[in-house]
Amino acid sequence: MTKTAVVAFGGNAILRSGQKGSYQEQIANIQETCEAILPLVERGYNLIITYGNGPQVGNVMLQHEITSRVTNVLAMPLDVCVSETQGSIGYLIEQGLRNVLHQHNIQRNVVSLNTQVLVDKNDKMFQQPTKPIGPYYKFKHMKSFLEDNPGTPFKEDPKGNGWRRVVASPHPLKIFNIDVIDTLAKAGHIVVTIGGGGIPIVETDKGCFAGVEAVIDKDLSSSLAAVSVHADEFYILTDVPKIYINFRKENEQALEQITLAQAQQYLDDGQFTEGSMAPKIRAAINFVQKTDNTCIITNASQLNNPNCGTKIIKQ
Amino acid sequence: MTKTAVVAFGGNAILRSGQKGSYQEQIANIQETCEAILPLVERGYNLIITYGNGPQVGNVMLQHEITSRVTNVLAMPLDVCVSETQGSIGYLIEQGLRNVLHQHNIQRNVVSLNTQVLVDKNDKMFQQPTKPIGPYYKFKHMKSFLEDNPGTPFKEDPKGNGWRRVVASPHPLKIFNIDVIDTLAKAGHIVVTIGGGGIPIVETDKGCFAGVEAVIDKDLSSSLAAVSVHADEFYILTDVPKIYINFRKENEQALEQITLAQAQQYLDDGQFTEGSMAPKIRAAINFVQKTDNTCIITNASQLNNPNCGTKIIKQ
Repeated sequence: MTKTAVVAFGGNAILRSGQKGSYQEQIANIQETCEAILPLVERGYNLIITYGNGPQVGNVMLQHEITSRVTNVLAMPLDVCVSETQGSIGYLIEQGLRNVLHQHNIQRNVVSLNTQVLVDKNDKMFQQPTKPIGPYYKFKHMKSFLEDNPGTPFKEDPKGNGWRRVVASPHPLKIFNIDVIDTLAKAGHIVVTIGGGGIPIVETDKGCFAGVEAVIDKDLSSSLAAVSVHADEFYILTDVPKIYINFRKENEQALEQITLAQAQQYLDDGQFTEGSMAPKIRAAINFVQKTDNTCIITNASQLNNPNCGTKIIKQ
Repeated sequence: MTKTAVVAFGGNAILRSGQKGSYQEQIANIQETCEAILPLVERGYNLIITYGNGPQVGNVMLQHEITSRVTNVLAMPLDVCVSETQGSIGYLIEQGLRNVLHQHNIQRNVVSLNTQVLVDKNDKMFQQPTKPIGPYYKFKHMKSFLEDNPGTPFKEDPKGNGWRRVVASPHPLKIFNIDVIDTLAKAGHIVVTIGGGGIPIVETDKGCFAGVEAVIDKDLSSSLAAVSVHADEFYILTDVPKIYINFRKENEQALEQITLAQAQQYLDDGQFTEGSMAPKIRAAINFVQKTDNTCIITNASQLNNPNCGTKIIKQ
C-alpha cells in the first residue's frame, strides 16, 4: 500500500530574505526546494504539497493599493489577493517540480489546484483581528483607505513604520475539494494545493459561500488536509532542521522525537514562539491526535535522511 | 452516454464595459453568466469551462509595473501575470458556479485548475509580436522599462495614448494536464480551466519547460481542449446571439447554421473581424474538422434555447 504524505513548504521555498525576489531567484529557490523533496518522491509516496504565501500576498495587496491610488483599477479584497498568489505560486511550484522530476528521469505528473477553505463566520477570531498583513500605510493613506472601506481594522506599527491592516486568522473547518485532492494524489499525481492556507470562505445566510477578509494559518490548513486524507506522514518544512527547546539559550536542546503529551507541555510552557514555531506545533498535535501517525518538522535539505527533523508521535 | 461540452466564457462573463470593475460587480456578472449556463448543466452534460483574461491580465501588469516604480517589489513577467489571473478568475467562477448550483438544488461539484499550455519556441509568431497588452506607457516609462528589460517590443498607440507592449500570440500545441481535466469532467465535476488561453510555456533545450512572454488565444486553446477530450459540443460564448455576415451593413444577415466549407469561405472573404470573431471561427473550424462534432457560437443568455446561436457543422 502506497503511503501518502502531506508536505507543507516553508516560506523560504520561494522567496528568501536577502534576495530581491526576482523571477530568476524565485525559479532557482523553487528548483532547490523541489530537489530537496525528491527523497519523498523516490520512496514512492503519494504527495500533497501545500505552501505559504505571506510575502507574496503582501506584495499583491501593495500592488492593488498603490495602483488604485493613481489609476481607475480598483483594489480587490484579501480573498482575491490570496487567490492570485495561489495562481502564481501554484504555477511556479508545478513547473519547478515537473522540471526536477524530468531531470531525474522520474515519471510523475504534477497538478496545481486553486483551493478554498471554509471558516466559521462566527469564529471568535473575527472579533479580535490580530494578524498584520500587507503594506505599511502612511496616516493619510490609511484615512483614504478607510473612507472607501469603513471599519477596516488597522494597527500602528510599534517600530514607527506606519499603520498596517490587521485581519482575523480563523480556524480552518473544511478544505473544499479535498476529495479531488485525495483522488488525484492516490492516482499518483503530485498535487500542489491550499496555497497560503487556502482562500478563506464563509457560509452566508442563504447556504451559499462568499470570500472573507482573513488569512488562515497554512500549517493548520495543511494539518486539516493531512487529517482529511488520512495521511501516513505530515511534513512541516521550515528553516531549522529540528525543533529546539530553550531556543537560542545556553541550554538550547534539539529534539529528536517527542510525544503528543510532551509537545503540549512544551507549548504550554511557552517554549515555542507565536507566529513561528507555536502554530506548527499545534498543527502537528492536531494531525497526530487525529490519525495516530507521525508529524515531522524539519527543513527541506534534511529530507535525504530518513531520521531527519523532530518527530511528533502519539506516545 | 453522458455528453461532454467545452464552454468558452466570453470576456463579459466577469468584467463589463461601463462598469468600474468592483468586486461586487464581478461577483454579480459571474453569477449571471453561471445562471445562463444552467441549461447545459440541467441537460446533464459533463462540462469544462474556459475563460479569457484580457482586461484582468492588463490590470495585473499595470499593478506590477506601477508598484515596481515606487517600491522594491519587482514586476513579474507575463507568464506569472497570467497565472495570477487564473488564480483569481478561477476562484470567482468556481465560487459563483457553486452558489448558483446550490440555489437551484443541483448536486454538482466545481474544481478550478491552474493550466499551462505548451507552445513552440520556434513558432513564427514569436518573430512578429503583434498583440498589444497591458498598460499604456509614457515615453520615459517605456525607456526605463527597456533599461530593465532590453529588447522588449513596444508599439506606439495610433490614437496617441502612449506606448504599449506587444507580445506574440503563438499557436497552442498541448494543454498540460488535459487528462486530469478530462477525468475530472467525466467524473461529473465542472472543471474551470485554461484561463486566458493558458500560461504559455515552451520546452527549453534541456527538455524542461519554462514560461514565456506571450498570450495564447483563449478560443484556440479551448478548441484544442475540446478536440483533446473529444467533446460532443463546443460552445464559444460572446456578446452577440449569432454570427453575422455583412455585419452592421444594410444586408447584414444572421447565420443559423453553416458548414465547415462555408465558414472557411466567409473567413477567406474577410467577413469576420480579426481580434474578434475571426479567431472564434478558426477555433470552431479546428474543432469541427477534427471531431466531426458541432460548435455553437452564441451569447450566454441564449443557452436556454436548444437551437440557439450559429452552429458550425461538418457538412
